[in-house]
Amino acid sequence: MILTKSSKDLYAEYTDRMQKIADVKYSAAVLQWDQETYLPAKGAEFRGRQLATLSEIAHQWLIEPSLGQLLQDLNGRGDLQEDERRNVELSLEDYEKQKKFSAAFIRRLSEATSHSFHSWLQARSANSFALFQDDLQQLVQLKKEEAELAGYENHPYNALLDQYEKGATVTLLDKVFAEVRIPLKDLLDKIANRPTIDDSFLRGDFPRQPQWDFGMELIKQLGFDFKAGRQDLSEHPFTTSFNSFDVRITTRVDEHDFNHMTWSCIHETGHGLYEQGLPPVYYGLPLGEYASLSIHESQSRLWENNVGRSLNWWKSVYPRLQAIFPSQLKAISLQQFYQGINKVAPSLIRTEADEVSYHFHVMIRYQLEKKLLDGSLAVVDIPAWWNESYKTWLGVTVPDDKKGCLQDVHWSHGSFGYFPTYSLGSFYAAQMFSAAEDQLPGLHESIGEGQTAPLLAWLRQNIHRHGRRLTSEELCLQATGKTLEIKYFLDYLFDKYKNIYKF
Amino acid sequence: MILTKSSKDLYAEYTDRMQKIADVKYSAAVLQWDQETYLPAKGAEFRGRQLATLSEIAHQWLIEPSLGQLLQDLNGRGDLQEDERRNVELSLEDYEKQKKFSAAFIRRLSEATSHSFHSWLQARSANSFALFQDDLQQLVQLKKEEAELAGYENHPYNALLDQYEKGATVTLLDKVFAEVRIPLKDLLDKIANRPTIDDSFLRGDFPRQPQWDFGMELIKQLGFDFKAGRQDLSEHPFTTSFNSFDVRITTRVDEHDFNHMTWSCIHETGHGLYEQGLPPVYYGLPLGEYASLSIHESQSRLWENNVGRSLNWWKSVYPRLQAIFPSQLKAISLQQFYQGINKVAPSLIRTEADEVSYHFHVMIRYQLEKKLLDGSLAVVDIPAWWNESYKTWLGVTVPDDKKGCLQDVHWSHGSFGYFPTYSLGSFYAAQMFSAAEDQLPGLHESIGEGQTAPLLAWLRQNIHRHGRRLTSEELCLQATGKTLEIKYFLDYLFDKYKNIYKF
Repeated sequence: MILTKSSKDLYAEYTDRMQKIADVKYSAAVLQWDQETYLPAKGAEFRGRQLATLSEIAHQWLIEPSLGQLLQDLNGRGDLQEDERRNVELSLEDYEKQKKFSAAFIRRLSEATSHSFHSWLQARSANSFALFQDDLQQLVQLKKEEAELAGYENHPYNALLDQYEKGATVTLLDKVFAEVRIPLKDLLDKIANRPTIDDSFLRGDFPRQPQWDFGMELIKQLGFDFKAGRQDLSEHPFTTSFNSFDVRITTRVDEHDFNHMTWSCIHETGHGLYEQGLPPVYYGLPLGEYASLSIHESQSRLWENNVGRSLNWWKSVYPRLQAIFPSQLKAISLQQFYQGINKVAPSLIRTEADEVSYHFHVMIRYQLEKKLLDGSLAVVDIPAWWNESYKTWLGVTVPDDKKGCLQDVHWSHGSFGYFPTYSLGSFYAAQMFSAAEDQLPGLHESIGEGQTAPLLAWLRQNIHRHGRRLTSEELCLQATGKTLEIKYFLDYLFDKYKNIYKF
Repeated sequence: MILTKSSKDLYAEYTDRMQKIADVKYSAAVLQWDQETYLPAKGAEFRGRQLATLSEIAHQWLIEPSLGQLLQDLNGRGDLQEDERRNVELSLEDYEKQKKFSAAFIRRLSEATSHSFHSWLQARSANSFALFQDDLQQLVQLKKEEAELAGYENHPYNALLDQYEKGATVTLLDKVFAEVRIPLKDLLDKIANRPTIDDSFLRGDFPRQPQWDFGMELIKQLGFDFKAGRQDLSEHPFTTSFNSFDVRITTRVDEHDFNHMTWSCIHETGHGLYEQGLPPVYYGLPLGEYASLSIHESQSRLWENNVGRSLNWWKSVYPRLQAIFPSQLKAISLQQFYQGINKVAPSLIRTEADEVSYHFHVMIRYQLEKKLLDGSLAVVDIPAWWNESYKTWLGVTVPDDKKGCLQDVHWSHGSFGYFPTYSLGSFYAAQMFSAAEDQLPGLHESIGEGQTAPLLAWLRQNIHRHGRRLTSEELCLQATGKTLEIKYFLDYLFDKYKNIYKF
């Protein structure tokens, strides 16, 4: 007699296994968070192997044939709830992807990234790409192997893009960047013909502690729950999450540049609000995870730019800021401040870029990664290629590696294919914000009073609670009535800058 | 043809397995450190299950029959190096002990302790033992189960004592406490008959930041390597380590009591120096681990008391402290300060107790745990029994649970049998310090100049570098020429207080 297990029992077994995998993955995330916030220098080596062991366990559990069997057995069963069916379907998809990578490969990758994160830190501190080059070379090699193992059509980079943004390809991104490149260049030219905006007041003396305190105030005001998360300092701001009740954001403070911290706080808060809004009941399951990286980025960009760089929102926040920094800002009107924080000026550092030139930063990285992957650019040639591209597209001269190709942490993490989601995120953000404005009649007024709770509620309802149920495009369609249209982003930018630069 | 693996290959396999187990154990330690320093309140629940999963993995790997087989195969092989032989021998001992506990039991224990840590925090904050009672009851029940699973002779508490201090038993500890109880009571009585020392200047206004900075200065000066460790704040000071290059100590600051932070800094520094001195080459192996908890505590006590409460050391440090807190201390002479920090006055809180009454705090906890384990005391009756014991032994009235049975974190961690090692540590510390003084002719003078490097070098040489090679008693014999004799501790105390209280 063969006893077939009920769907209920099998689903419980599936949940249990996935949640234990999540425990290990999120434990690794805690170690990574610690690595970038508090780890003492000499601790890096053993931390590397600790992380590698955790990655290996999570990966081994994820690719166990018995899990594959369980998922196949469960997949499509008629007596599962809709959510359960979707979880199983997505987990099976993950399983099929992950089982292409051996445990040994995952360990090598994990050890290599731990190692190269530290050589990146050293290279940055010594301002010398040469110190990072060997580790980066090894990572690129591993990423090529990864692409081969994962499989792809047309271009090896497609295999990596797909990991961050399901369905993204070189063909698609070439098209998207071609579509925005001309109008954005046109906008940059229009702005270049107008008088320069004076934003020197933003680079006065802004002491550390009040900046930090103001940032914490904003984060709270925007709805981040400090009982379910925290903010710390790190070399490069980031967000990580160990579950919806423990979301960590980081920032850095520059005492001579007010721009630095405030918008990175708002940006990471956007990510953090998304993580805090994912349904905890699906801990460890796909429906408890974020939809995609571009959707994640849409949340950070929406808060950073559509809210955090709007005149409307600053109407309510600016008096408070002036009260904190009276000597620096009392003589600066709201309008001057608004223009200053939106000054467009092609420059060297991506994270400090204005909303227009930003996408050239992304495009350059996208093209560079594509070339690294198909072998048309050697690692040793990165600085020269980088510097030339910045000259070509942004008209700026890169003085050194720290302000050039060493500025981002991503490669040291092994994240290749990640950058394009930043641009996609901005494009989605503009479309979502426009939809929220259409759907919520009093939205503009409430934001003008510093009340962003209705906007957050709309995002919770239309984006956050769905977890990974829908793809980026399905989610966009459901929330805004249309799949992605770059027009919303371009309209938003042109309207904004027409007003600011009066062309 | 049977191919027998070489000892070299088997030893490499053993090392690899043990180091991966260490990776998981130390990852759990990172999560625990985070739990007590930075974890947001709502994160506790999922953190509990994450820790449980890691404990379960480490335990499962440790009790795998194939590891037992490997260890048995390696044990006693003639072609192993001496260190290798000792590692294998100790690992086999651990294996035999650990395999008595099922994975499910370990998980229950881990989940229960995570949970009860948070209810302890809540109970402390609400000053109500009742809020902790149910979780503690569950833990005591689990500890009884643990004792039965581990096996013991005579008394179930012996099974738990042995986990922290190999060979320690109720019989032995009853004898030790009987031996010190009379002379210490005698000393307390002598002191009670002398005029009270005025230490009110220690409870002035000592702002947070300079206290923290001074503590950091001391820690550095004592030789703690901040490139291989850090200090943070936590509710209850502790030391943890993820390898010799990443040692974390914590402290807490009381702005109205200078005693609070300084000696906890020095105490945890003592633990930290020991961890930083363990040989990193034996990461994950017994020879890379501390000898025992009493030896660990001997290191913290030696620095805290034999150095950190000595007139000799403060000669060099006190001027600096006066410079930091001039309004509080400029009128206080070094002699007054020395007497103040060594004031003996039976009181409520163990961690704030003087060196004489301290051991009554330990003895009370020891007796209480013994009773909980043999069932002669019910959890619900803890507060009453506690309060009565404090009245009997120290003559103090416990006003509430926070100042009574809720003061220590240990039970919430599931640590029963731990407290006695505190007293043993003090006894070992006195004997070691006396031996170091005998063996290092200029020691007194160098400490008087604030130079503690020779003392640290002696400890590195005689204690730290041996890891777990020797038992507490073997280590003591090798370092001091004798096994533990309480006389060193009693002589130290009587000499010191005769001088201070002039009896």
